[in-house]
Amino acid sequence: MKFLEDMILTHGEVRPGGIVKVDSFLNHQIDWKVYREIGKEFYRLFQNDGVNKIVTVEASGIGLACVAAQSFEVPVVFAKKSKTSNIDADLYSARVHSFTHGNDYTMVISQKYLGPTDRVLIIDDFLANGQAVMGLRSILSQAGATLCGVGIAIEKGFQEGGRLLREEGVRLESLAIIKAIGEDGRISF
Amino acid sequence: MKFLEDMILTHGEVRPGGIVKVDSFLNHQIDWKVYREIGKEFYRLFQNDGVNKIVTVEASGIGLACVAAQSFEVPVVFAKKSKTSNIDADLYSARVHSFTHGNDYTMVISQKYLGPTDRVLIIDDFLANGQAVMGLRSILSQAGATLCGVGIAIEKGFQEGGRLLREEGVRLESLAIIKAIGEDGRISF
Repeated sequence: MKFLEDMILTHGEVRPGGIVKVDSFLNHQIDWKVYREIGKEFYRLFQNDGVNKIVTVEASGIGLACVAAQSFEVPVVFAKKSKTSNIDADLYSARVHSFTHGNDYTMVISQKYLGPTDRVLIIDDFLANGQAVMGLRSILSQAGATLCGVGIAIEKGFQEGGRLLREEGVRLESLAIIKAIGEDGRISF
Repeated sequence: MKFLEDMILTHGEVRPGGIVKVDSFLNHQIDWKVYREIGKEFYRLFQNDGVNKIVTVEASGIGLACVAAQSFEVPVVFAKKSKTSNIDADLYSARVHSFTHGNDYTMVISQKYLGPTDRVLIIDDFLANGQAVMGLRSILSQAGATLCGVGIAIEKGFQEGGRLLREEGVRLESLAIIKAIGEDGRISF
């Protein structure tokens, strides 16, 4: 999506180690218009897939999911992050490694809110190593829910998450894919 | 707001200790229509107050803030929760006690995204002891920003947060105020 690529080029900040900071409009301060456009684009891409639930993980995926849900007119369920691996019996859970924070966490969703009749669109702001999406897929599979696809705002194409998901046949739609970050900090799509 | 009170009566679950679970529509699974109505109502209440930024705290406030922002057409900034009290120099921060989780945390907002020209509406899903809102007020005050008001979906009127904020002259609009939960688990507004 050209609009999002332009926002990244204009407002993104490149930091050492392949880090692209977009917290002026995507995941700390949030530009309402960017969210609206992203929500509409996810709807355009997945409107014919019978999606009846949007699933994401806290925290920064929630806003995008809730705005997109206004177009799809379906509920959102967000996975909560828990530090402990002791999980109540009425929860689906997946253990996930966060490369960003360098730690492991457990994501959980109540069994009440996900089941075999659900046709799910997973939404998140970023895709890098794909750990969060893999965790959500595992939870969907525990619930017997169907994964219609994955909608991502920004994919880091130079990390392996996107490749792994596509190889497994997941329909992954990333609205901006950063192919590389040059030595000079230049972003290419 | 009658619509929200009806949702609480129909779908809320009362647990021992004055806990009202509304995670089927408000803060785990999210009913897109409830969020839309809440967002519109906040807009109706605060549309003439010159609000140019919505501030909330992760995680469950983010969705409501982002949907409301679509009516106000203003940016959202959400405070992040940090376990450490070592805070970078470029952050505003406030130390907050969570009665729900029985621990302390630090909420932080980048100094880049809040300043003296900001006229802020604070939005959150729940108000009980008011600690989160107090923390956000402290951050607004550090930034020199103006607080226009506080919009809350559900206030627990039998806890002290609402009283404390109103006594300090804060314009607090809670869309549903739970006055009491009877011995039999009956909720009254």
